[in-house]
Amino acid sequence: MNKSIRIKGNASVANVSCGFDCIGYAISVPGDLITLTKKNTPGIDITMSGFGSDSISCDPKNNTGGQAIVSLLEALTSDQGFHLHIEKGIPPGSGVGSSAASAAAAIVGVNELLNNPLTLNELLVHGMAGESASAGVEHADNVAPALLGGIILIRSYNPLDILELPVPDSLFSTIVLPDLVVNTRDARNILPKNVPLKTAIAQAGNLAGFSLALHNEDFDLLGRSMVDHFAEPHRAKLIPGYKAVRNAALDAEAIGCGIAGSGPAVFALSDSLEKAEKIGLAMVNTFKNSGLASQSYCSPIHTQPPEILG
Amino acid sequence: MNKSIRIKGNASVANVSCGFDCIGYAISVPGDLITLTKKNTPGIDITMSGFGSDSISCDPKNNTGGQAIVSLLEALTSDQGFHLHIEKGIPPGSGVGSSAASAAAAIVGVNELLNNPLTLNELLVHGMAGESASAGVEHADNVAPALLGGIILIRSYNPLDILELPVPDSLFSTIVLPDLVVNTRDARNILPKNVPLKTAIAQAGNLAGFSLALHNEDFDLLGRSMVDHFAEPHRAKLIPGYKAVRNAALDAEAIGCGIAGSGPAVFALSDSLEKAEKIGLAMVNTFKNSGLASQSYCSPIHTQPPEILG
Repeated sequence: MNKSIRIKGNASVANVSCGFDCIGYAISVPGDLITLTKKNTPGIDITMSGFGSDSISCDPKNNTGGQAIVSLLEALTSDQGFHLHIEKGIPPGSGVGSSAASAAAAIVGVNELLNNPLTLNELLVHGMAGESASAGVEHADNVAPALLGGIILIRSYNPLDILELPVPDSLFSTIVLPDLVVNTRDARNILPKNVPLKTAIAQAGNLAGFSLALHNEDFDLLGRSMVDHFAEPHRAKLIPGYKAVRNAALDAEAIGCGIAGSGPAVFALSDSLEKAEKIGLAMVNTFKNSGLASQSYCSPIHTQPPEILG
Repeated sequence: MNKSIRIKGNASVANVSCGFDCIGYAISVPGDLITLTKKNTPGIDITMSGFGSDSISCDPKNNTGGQAIVSLLEALTSDQGFHLHIEKGIPPGSGVGSSAASAAAAIVGVNELLNNPLTLNELLVHGMAGESASAGVEHADNVAPALLGGIILIRSYNPLDILELPVPDSLFSTIVLPDLVVNTRDARNILPKNVPLKTAIAQAGNLAGFSLALHNEDFDLLGRSMVDHFAEPHRAKLIPGYKAVRNAALDAEAIGCGIAGSGPAVFALSDSLEKAEKIGLAMVNTFKNSGLASQSYCSPIHTQPPEILG
């Protein structure tokens, strides 16, 4: 009987410009590595290593992976205990779904060790419960793509309506993580509570254009649609040099570019891995001009759930 | 040489619930019948007959068909004169693109008589110029579907970005026109200038869901997405019995139901002509309970430009 298992948790990009609070996509790198071991006693023990692991609580109630497992076990009325080791490959607080990656991998692993009583879609609410441990709210725009893979549309939270958008084979992602901390609460509080109706219509039109562009593999339309009227105008000021970095990405043939999640990471989409790397280099060099070191990661859109490595 | 021509102008449904100010679709009935005749002298002469034609100006500057032709001829630097006869089959002011139907048919006819110097897409700005004669603003959500056919997404006005959404073969439209006048300006003024950010996000999610549903021919998702948070909550009160009519449509198996344009017409979508007719009957009967006579029209989505009848 398999009592221990390793799972790779994937990073993700939420918001995706026009998809503020509606869209997220998964990427292959960076990732977290989760090791789950069945215990003979109830309860969740957590240990951590890797990027920024010192800053993350090992108390299951304050750890996304732990909280996600607790939620899942409660739903299954199981008192099985687990040891969870999280090896962080995704820097926490970078804006690319670090906590969601751990939560998604943890519940996929627990589900596997319990002989898969739930489907991936059924696991999602437990991943969201995990997210609430770090974010305070049960948002899905990182954990849904981290769990399901692909490009995800969250049409509605009440009731929850999670939809998979088509993923063109030739779509690649660049993310650049500057050496900078943006407090998620600040990034949220800087947003206006109301927006002009005209602005709301423009955003909706862009999001529909984004969906259509993915279907038609029309990357010109995808780029035209990747304009965020809601968050980016306010959050750009939290990331020194952001506008120059975005321009550098577009000059390097990015389809579109925006703030990943609530930042400080910046993402870009492109139509080849070669361009994705060229764009990453241009963005890193431009962040340098603002005195910021940064790290870029390139990958296709990751279309699979967290991989069970055995 | 063909000096005279007849063209059928198609009615259309703008807004389409979640697509407020972004979406419009064309229908086959009702329609206007346009007769265009080349004159030997410059200028546009207009005559009218049919539904509500007494209420429409025959001055080319105050007539959508006339104004659209004037705009087109100016762009072509042509001083060709035309006689335009408009036989209204679409009641003006009903909310189903009466003026847009005339404008679209008129410019398709003029273009044909001038040996088609412009494409349909190039004609659109002239149709929009025509719309400004009746609406005061150059909106496209009726005239674009009336001109191009199908289900149209207006992603942006500046620059103009008009996109065709996929049209499932099995999608049918019902419109019901109650015997009621809703002033377009009142319907516009009743809308708030600002909306909560959360509401704007919900509308954008629905519009992306609508686009996805058409691609996947997922009529359940289409129905879930057809919720308007922007206009319907405010405009419903302008149409006596609206909520009961909407409920009657949904009870009669409509996929979704909403206010057509700024009303008073109400539209519903369904997956067969038989259901479209059943829904129309249910809506007409429900309007009766509010003391309103009404007329229903059923058709598939009309996917063609205005038809040249010879």
